[in-house]
Amino acid sequence: MKDSPLVGVIMGSRSDWETMRHADEVLTEFGVAHECRIVSAHRTPDLMVEYAREAEDRGLQVIIAGAGGAAHLPGMVAALTTLPVLGVPVESRTMKGIDSLYSIVQMPGGVPVGTLAIGSAGARNAGLLAVSILANHDDGLRAQLKVFRERQAQRVGEDKLP
Amino acid sequence: MKDSPLVGVIMGSRSDWETMRHADEVLTEFGVAHECRIVSAHRTPDLMVEYAREAEDRGLQVIIAGAGGAAHLPGMVAALTTLPVLGVPVESRTMKGIDSLYSIVQMPGGVPVGTLAIGSAGARNAGLLAVSILANHDDGLRAQLKVFRERQAQRVGEDKLP
Amino acid sequence: MKDSPLVGVIMGSRSDWETMRHADEVLTEFGVAHECRIVSAHRTPDLMVEYAREAEDRGLQVIIAGAGGAAHLPGMVAALTTLPVLGVPVESRTMKGIDSLYSIVQMPGGVPVGTLAIGSAGARNAGLLAVSILANHDDGLRAQLKVFRERQAQRVGEDKLP
Amino acid sequence: MKDSPLVGVIMGSRSDWETMRHADEVLTEFGVAHECRIVSAHRTPDLMVEYAREAEDRGLQVIIAGAGGAAHLPGMVAALTTLPVLGVPVESRTMKGIDSLYSIVQMPGGVPVGTLAIGSAGARNAGLLAVSILANHDDGLRAQLKVFRERQAQRVGEDKLP
Amino acid sequence: MKDSPLVGVIMGSRSDWETMRHADEVLTEFGVAHECRIVSAHRTPDLMVEYAREAEDRGLQVIIAGAGGAAHLPGMVAALTTLPVLGVPVESRTMKGIDSLYSIVQMPGGVPVGTLAIGSAGARNAGLLAVSILANHDDGLRAQLKVFRERQAQRVGEDKLP
Amino acid sequence: MKDSPLVGVIMGSRSDWETMRHADEVLTEFGVAHECRIVSAHRTPDLMVEYAREAEDRGLQVIIAGAGGAAHLPGMVAALTTLPVLGVPVESRTMKGIDSLYSIVQMPGGVPVGTLAIGSAGARNAGLLAVSILANHDDGLRAQLKVFRERQAQRVGEDKLP
Amino acid sequence: MKDSPLVGVIMGSRSDWETMRHADEVLTEFGVAHECRIVSAHRTPDLMVEYAREAEDRGLQVIIAGAGGAAHLPGMVAALTTLPVLGVPVESRTMKGIDSLYSIVQMPGGVPVGTLAIGSAGARNAGLLAVSILANHDDGLRAQLKVFRERQAQRVGEDKLP
Amino acid sequence: MKDSPLVGVIMGSRSDWETMRHADEVLTEFGVAHECRIVSAHRTPDLMVEYAREAEDRGLQVIIAGAGGAAHLPGMVAALTTLPVLGVPVESRTMKGIDSLYSIVQMPGGVPVGTLAIGSAGARNAGLLAVSILANHDDGLRAQLKVFRERQAQRVGEDKLP
Repeated sequence: MKDSPLVGVIMGSRSDWETMRHADEVLTEFGVAHECRIVSAHRTPDLMVEYAREAEDRGLQVIIAGAGGAAHLPGMVAALTTLPVLGVPVESRTMKGIDSLYSIVQMPGGVPVGTLAIGSAGARNAGLLAVSILANHDDGLRAQLKVFRERQAQRVGEDKLP
Repeated sequence: MKDSPLVGVIMGSRSDWETMRHADEVLTEFGVAHECRIVSAHRTPDLMVEYAREAEDRGLQVIIAGAGGAAHLPGMVAALTTLPVLGVPVESRTMKGIDSLYSIVQMPGGVPVGTLAIGSAGARNAGLLAVSILANHDDGLRAQLKVFRERQAQRVGEDKLP
Repeated sequence: MKDSPLVGVIMGSRSDWETMRHADEVLTEFGVAHECRIVSAHRTPDLMVEYAREAEDRGLQVIIAGAGGAAHLPGMVAALTTLPVLGVPVESRTMKGIDSLYSIVQMPGGVPVGTLAIGSAGARNAGLLAVSILANHDDGLRAQLKVFRERQAQRVGEDKLP
Repeated sequence: MKDSPLVGVIMGSRSDWETMRHADEVLTEFGVAHECRIVSAHRTPDLMVEYAREAEDRGLQVIIAGAGGAAHLPGMVAALTTLPVLGVPVESRTMKGIDSLYSIVQMPGGVPVGTLAIGSAGARNAGLLAVSILANHDDGLRAQLKVFRERQAQRVGEDKLP
Repeated sequence: MKDSPLVGVIMGSRSDWETMRHADEVLTEFGVAHECRIVSAHRTPDLMVEYAREAEDRGLQVIIAGAGGAAHLPGMVAALTTLPVLGVPVESRTMKGIDSLYSIVQMPGGVPVGTLAIGSAGARNAGLLAVSILANHDDGLRAQLKVFRERQAQRVGEDKLP
Repeated sequence: MKDSPLVGVIMGSRSDWETMRHADEVLTEFGVAHECRIVSAHRTPDLMVEYAREAEDRGLQVIIAGAGGAAHLPGMVAALTTLPVLGVPVESRTMKGIDSLYSIVQMPGGVPVGTLAIGSAGARNAGLLAVSILANHDDGLRAQLKVFRERQAQRVGEDKLP
Repeated sequence: MKDSPLVGVIMGSRSDWETMRHADEVLTEFGVAHECRIVSAHRTPDLMVEYAREAEDRGLQVIIAGAGGAAHLPGMVAALTTLPVLGVPVESRTMKGIDSLYSIVQMPGGVPVGTLAIGSAGARNAGLLAVSILANHDDGLRAQLKVFRERQAQRVGEDKLP
Repeated sequence: MKDSPLVGVIMGSRSDWETMRHADEVLTEFGVAHECRIVSAHRTPDLMVEYAREAEDRGLQVIIAGAGGAAHLPGMVAALTTLPVLGVPVESRTMKGIDSLYSIVQMPGGVPVGTLAIGSAGARNAGLLAVSILANHDDGLRAQLKVFRERQAQRVGEDKLP
């Protein structure tokens, strides 16, 4: 069924939503079936294992995971599934997300996480990269992406300096 | 034709090969048709535009781009195609790749680059993430990935401490 | 014609204006003909190529480019023209412009960008450095620069501590 | 039985042994029953879950976990047991262990990891901190620790400058 | 007497309380007898020596020390006692606690400090790690810790995304 | 007379030559009259003042200054002349040139230094940027620069991956 | 005459006063004759040279210099006098004073600057260190310093936690 | 007696001598009576307290303290004496001395440490700053310092570029 989610957007806590909703918005804008869940590597490790292990059978094709500080969620999910996992470093209070970035991007050889920018721009881009991956086998999405890029360029042209 | 490349591995200079060959090795190991090229954002901007613009029509499904220092190749290629682009920060001399990492990962909202770890581990993981993306529509690759993970786990078990 | 712009001030997005207007103000103060434009490396790569390729023929002598985050605009413009390019790292939200600085200053040998400080002081100094370059063949500008420096020194002398 | 291990020393890969053997040496020096194992968060997640879940029942009182890069092992083990967990950031190639340190120490509230210095000194100190914890209910160990400190001070006194 | 403090929570100045009260709250929540004191390494070195030297005889089993900037309190107390010492880097004004973190965690081999995250989360986790250490010989505390973890997991499950 | 130097290349110490000779080589390659001198801001402040004050009258049009650590030479020379000053951060021993970079690039508004990359690539690019500035009024140099860029692109095309 | 200033407190701009007034306050509190001046390395280099060159003859015994960003004032003054120079890194907007700190502390061998902490605490401590230097030949000041330290310790004792 | 030491050079361990001997050499070169000792804040806290407390009575006028990593020696000595204390960050293995620098320079208001550059240059400059402090009341030393500076400038003049 086409409404079964293709992309899973997960995050370590409710407070990450302000960042991760930008992934949700992009996926909604492109009409990609997806789900958003709170799954914490540290507070709900069992749930995380279950989510990652079942993701492929549930039909997910991409997992987007956002986390802050010692951000273990993207890497641990990547260790538990062979689906492509995209990681979003959520801005942390004391280190502004540098800790989140290093914890997500510096994965050892063997278990990849495709990491995006710190914060909202990264969440938005995680959504777009997921669309781009799905578009490899969905010409409609590919066309939508091209229109999206053209409009993006047009808006730059319409922006006026004082 | 199945031998037409599905993955393009590009890098800014010959000296990046020592890093990027780890992406090439993974793709070869998984039997994924791919190509490796030197394409420099700064020294051959026209070639870069051409490569990125033609990538989709040439049948590429994923582009892996490695670069060091002010590493503009992954982001510029991502600006010029809607294919998924994976970026590998090559270790730089003076900043050990921190400059490469920031230049690749901190893309603005609208143009995503899935960024891997600095150096060889990152190149290897870019190859694996590309395989993982292709595996969404190739059950054989998915199966290979699972075997790969199992063997990886087995090797840990066989490693002996003194 | 003397009103044809000698300096092009470009920036990646409308939000960079708050920083880049300090370059505009200096150039206006010195009576240097110039233009300000939004040109995005990532969202309008074609426009960027066109702008950089035509700059010399349009009579520009210096290009000032400001950008934030994975700031590719100055370096890519420098790759597409042999005019002197000055780069201004715009302060980014999560890394305070460190990412912008590294992305602009760490250019590989062969394609130079003269980089200024992060933020408004850097934009102001980009304007002054452009004036200084033009002054090599404009005695009036040289004289203005000297007066500017003298007044700057005087103002320090007039500043009073409580 | 007093020879059943009280301290578990685990690490992500064989290459971490050069660092983690300093924990092993301290524990051996103090006569503390312990075990050393390779347990990888990313390559053997199931083994990691099993090890952490069974640790308490197996009689362990402290777990020392060393890892490098995106170092998830200490934090994930801490999420899976209520035993005290000590983390050792292993020096990484490109970031000299800064990434390991941030990935281990910046745990969210609710799941603590007591983090030691990067590298061998940290591994050694993890061993000593484990001894110190055990010494709360083992007067012999407490006495040994005091002798250790005295000898350490004496050696400083015996060191001669040229 | 069971009300004699088992855990000493010390901090360099009154202004650290806003951070360190999170350790106090956890210990109170778990019913662990403890004390909170201002002890400054730099302004009251004699008091610090006295506090550290007498801690064991006063029945303390764990010392939690919080400090900011050139944060010497945890390390110096650790040098003066063989009790386990946990360090909390308090967020500093100019470096956001990076200076505090490095000053606490980078102890030389021989004198360990178990370091927690910068700021309130770190203080809270220092309390939890102290509880975890005491729980090795207190089954009631161990049981409480398990309930705490379960409730923590439940709360994640109850959190709702919009 | 055309052999009178147009570009002054100065550096804080003899040990900077290994880096700064790359600026010298570029200027020689382009046939630009120039001079190389050791001028130390800290050890020969009088010489520095004299050099900067007389530069314009001696016919210099660009000054390239390289320095390491607390690298004050470029900024102080810029304070003492209105000629365009380009700064090259020389790689320092303990901070790999990060200290040099910050000391050079973070100039206050009013006194600009166009900063290049850390190390040899930066020195080479300082030479190229000076050529680019001179080329604004020297069609022969402009033509040479274009040939240089074309050859640079060709060499990329001729590089072969294994 | 005993009112002739013994300590010169200088700073790069009026905006540094909010930081540097803490040095002024300490010196006033200890009754040390001193002066406060705005002297900018970049905007008033001649004044800076004059100030530094005449300092010894004017009877100054210590110079305290505060500056932000590419903070050249302390190091340049130190290059121009053999009096002890203390440097205070003023907090900068984008780098929070890290740039100021590196620019001041990383002086090359041969020209020392005794550097204090970033911001107000550093300014205050520069004042105290100047007092401490003067106290070597002023028993009254030495006695005052000891009273100051005692009161400082007392105030810690009087601080109450809630 | 004039041979009683005026400057105490202390360091945390024998391995710091390679750095700190540069302070010793300068003091010897200037004929300043001094002593060199190993005094560890962490391994010999009692000796450190004793050394700092007795320093003034023993006739010391300046203390130079070098340490690496969590470098507490300079700050703790400064807390225990009112003599001027100069701190030298010794280069550490994993963080190249950044940890040492932050641990020494970021002292809280009330207890100053005049901090020099990381490593040998810093040790050499600590010696020179001590000489400069003593020279306030020793005309011979002042004269020697001036000669030292002149020779230093001469050597720059004699250095030849190839």
